[in-house]
Amino acid sequence: MAEGHHIESALFVIFGATGDLARRKLFPALYNLSAEGILPSGVAIVGVGRRPFDLAYFREKFILPALLDNSRLAGNLLHNFSSFAQRCYYFSLDLRDSSRYRELKNFLDQLDWEWGVQGNRVFYLALAPELFGPVVANLKEQGFLDKGPRSWKRVLVEKPFGWDLDSARALNRELTQAFPEEDIYRIDHYLGKEMIQNIMVIRFANAFFEPVWNNKYIDHIQITSSEKIGVGERAAYYDRAGALRDMLQNHMLQLVALIAMEPPVGLDAQAIRLEKAKVFRSLQPFTRERILQDIVRGQYGPGYIDGEPVPGYREEAGIPADSVTETFLAVKLFVNTFRWAGVPFYLRTGKRLPAKVTEIIIQFKPLPEILYFKEYGELLPNVLVIRVQPLEGIFVQLNAKRPGTNNYIVPIRLDFCQNCGVGTNSPEAYERLLYDALRGDATLFTGWEEVEYAWKFVDPIAQAWATIPVHFPNYAAGEWGPPEARVLIERDGRRWWESPAYMMYPGPFTQVCQYIKGSRAGNPG
Amino acid sequence: MAEGHHIESALFVIFGATGDLARRKLFPALYNLSAEGILPSGVAIVGVGRRPFDLAYFREKFILPALLDNSRLAGNLLHNFSSFAQRCYYFSLDLRDSSRYRELKNFLDQLDWEWGVQGNRVFYLALAPELFGPVVANLKEQGFLDKGPRSWKRVLVEKPFGWDLDSARALNRELTQAFPEEDIYRIDHYLGKEMIQNIMVIRFANAFFEPVWNNKYIDHIQITSSEKIGVGERAAYYDRAGALRDMLQNHMLQLVALIAMEPPVGLDAQAIRLEKAKVFRSLQPFTRERILQDIVRGQYGPGYIDGEPVPGYREEAGIPADSVTETFLAVKLFVNTFRWAGVPFYLRTGKRLPAKVTEIIIQFKPLPEILYFKEYGELLPNVLVIRVQPLEGIFVQLNAKRPGTNNYIVPIRLDFCQNCGVGTNSPEAYERLLYDALRGDATLFTGWEEVEYAWKFVDPIAQAWATIPVHFPNYAAGEWGPPEARVLIERDGRRWWESPAYMMYPGPFTQVCQYIKGSRAGNPG
Repeated sequence: MAEGHHIESALFVIFGATGDLARRKLFPALYNLSAEGILPSGVAIVGVGRRPFDLAYFREKFILPALLDNSRLAGNLLHNFSSFAQRCYYFSLDLRDSSRYRELKNFLDQLDWEWGVQGNRVFYLALAPELFGPVVANLKEQGFLDKGPRSWKRVLVEKPFGWDLDSARALNRELTQAFPEEDIYRIDHYLGKEMIQNIMVIRFANAFFEPVWNNKYIDHIQITSSEKIGVGERAAYYDRAGALRDMLQNHMLQLVALIAMEPPVGLDAQAIRLEKAKVFRSLQPFTRERILQDIVRGQYGPGYIDGEPVPGYREEAGIPADSVTETFLAVKLFVNTFRWAGVPFYLRTGKRLPAKVTEIIIQFKPLPEILYFKEYGELLPNVLVIRVQPLEGIFVQLNAKRPGTNNYIVPIRLDFCQNCGVGTNSPEAYERLLYDALRGDATLFTGWEEVEYAWKFVDPIAQAWATIPVHFPNYAAGEWGPPEARVLIERDGRRWWESPAYMMYPGPFTQVCQYIKGSRAGNPG
Repeated sequence: MAEGHHIESALFVIFGATGDLARRKLFPALYNLSAEGILPSGVAIVGVGRRPFDLAYFREKFILPALLDNSRLAGNLLHNFSSFAQRCYYFSLDLRDSSRYRELKNFLDQLDWEWGVQGNRVFYLALAPELFGPVVANLKEQGFLDKGPRSWKRVLVEKPFGWDLDSARALNRELTQAFPEEDIYRIDHYLGKEMIQNIMVIRFANAFFEPVWNNKYIDHIQITSSEKIGVGERAAYYDRAGALRDMLQNHMLQLVALIAMEPPVGLDAQAIRLEKAKVFRSLQPFTRERILQDIVRGQYGPGYIDGEPVPGYREEAGIPADSVTETFLAVKLFVNTFRWAGVPFYLRTGKRLPAKVTEIIIQFKPLPEILYFKEYGELLPNVLVIRVQPLEGIFVQLNAKRPGTNNYIVPIRLDFCQNCGVGTNSPEAYERLLYDALRGDATLFTGWEEVEYAWKFVDPIAQAWATIPVHFPNYAAGEWGPPEARVLIERDGRRWWESPAYMMYPGPFTQVCQYIKGSRAGNPG
């Protein structure tokens, strides 16, 4: 999170440069940074891939369409593309063929000289994890990582970071044989999202929240991260991962950590990772009994999304007709710290749900039963909602008197929305993350300790599931998971905030907020 | 505040029925209640005044124009006036002429029979206080207050309730000789305003605020109640009262009490008055030294309001050229309770100020200096603002990350506004107050104990001022009072939120909120 890091000249080397991630996310993010003047002129980008592109083809037939389709600043392409394209190079290589890495090294060294980079490198492994080992071994053995006096080498890797604790450890060993931990940037792209970055600011830059941010005042926390889409083109990966590994082990637990962690001693990556790792260590482990009781898994069958019929998971291309992979997961977990003891965290994620939304809901304890206002309407609990996507903002729901001569009490929302009404043009998660990697700020990346503890938490669940039969599909596309997901929270006298009851919550008073950039709110008088 | 009171049939008798208050406020409020179907059909209204109106003239030449000019529901007059007019009667009487009260009593008794009222009476004394004594004495002596088995008699009085403790006690004696305390309804029309009523709901119907509502978390409180108008047609009254008696002794101290009071044991008038009186008793008394140090008085000279030149106070019609009456007052006071010890309340009120606004600002303590985010922008303190008028709503100002790839922190507002953008049609304060008086709910009226303690607090200030020379005028119309008012708060390292600095506070992100009645906020996904 710390400022004060400056981007020096560097070569940004993308292994897997013609793949889906590079096309949809990496080149658009680098282009956006360039078009907004954030990427220094001394940064050149080298795509490495198996396909035999020549440079002109790579720039015009691969990068240009990638930007047209995927950049939020595609409207400026006419103006900005040529200067961006001149940063971009291509080197064709079979990554398992060690004999040609020397040529790649020469190619990079030549660019290094042309661009005045002095040895700085980012290596982005946009690859299947099986290729991490061969690539970093070659980088190390063939001298790519030899450091000059003031140069640095960093490696960026994507999830999945392993399939369980053992495979994650093996993967990490491969990386750490070539790179020290502080130069390994493990991407969890949720951490690059605007409102996720804002969680720490909201918690630690406002005197208002800290006093009530504990089990004395908070009743429970809900985190929902839902998608309307199905498995799409990621069938092979997804059917092996499922919601547990694809969402819970990384994104969802990271959100839990940001909400639950103690204030770090500083804003550097080390201090923050320490506190997040403490949260992961404090997660109450799941026994087999609690797995049956407090975790609900589901898989969608055929149903309707936005009124259109969609197939069930087992009918999707590339999915076995008897797949038992979970596409939905609801879990009740506990963080066993002094701050959070007794406060349940209800997490829910899945595909083919009725809405695409990521929200964190902090619900405060109800007022004492003896209190007087309850006879004047349904007193709802106070909640703080952090909206991550698609809306970005926060609101607090309170009770207030309805205007008029009586005392009827209704819920109101104090609302702040960054992108309501005007659409969003916030930077994408990858822009922030690639920018931070270039300037050497690892705050928004996942430390090894977090990965390790997350697998320790998740492995027993996966292992137990493998021995417990399931009857899938158990929810129709377009529903909020199987009925058991409602029972999970409702048996505790609580409810999911997106359930039909949620739709009633705002009551007769509501607001539409427009976000007007650059305007000034003055004295209302 | 309690519900469960029902309006029975009654005669609503207005003494001073042809005066300014009746014309501007009382008849419009009664009409609005009638037009909205809130005033039961068994309530008749009897105007008593010196002028020799006949009934048709009173209805058509006095009430009708009064409603046209002053009712927020004047648009419905064509439809609703005749049924309202039929509730209204007039009786011409010189209030000091005891010989004709018997006729008035017969007139009321006749109406009582016609309307099936069974003896219930509200007597509204819309009179100069000198007339309270003669009127209530006649009411008592001539049998107006003799109660039937289940009937009630109530008296409503307006401020000013005395000019000092002695005169207030004398006035109260006159009233209590005829009415028991529980039947005396002392109007402070601020208490009828929507957001003032909302203060107790916000405080006691939300778990969110109670934990931080004390000197551990709150830095200070500001209350501003400013007017753009000058003394207008109230010269004779105002020049005797000044801002101290006209605003501080009643309205402003009532707001202090609502913010500072402990939770009452119930919502009945008695429980609430007890807690408010405890606040008044806890006000730290002003020594002569503290009067000089912590109170600033001012009087406007000529200046500009909205760009138009306006005369100084001493040039207004009916004001002596050497008047030393204060038209502005700023004060720093303390409530010496466990909850509030050490938390200054800065109050400010005046005429011919740059804006018409009543706002309560609760400013929270700053974060500890050691904390990290301060290097990323000016960290502003958190504030909760209760907007009383002209906007009605509340907002919380927080710090958040500005969208983008850096960590710059900016203030944001979580905002709820009842009337932004769409104009307001909230009931007026008098509607609520007359409604409550009819149904016997004294919660929003001022108890004698509060009045008494308020005068005990204010008297030493007035007495000291009388012996300390002032140099008036000391602010130009259109300024926020004399410069000393800024010094009063700025020497403590704080600032008024309407100062020019306030205009910068909202920063580059702001919202326009529209209040959409009846619409529903659903899941954003």
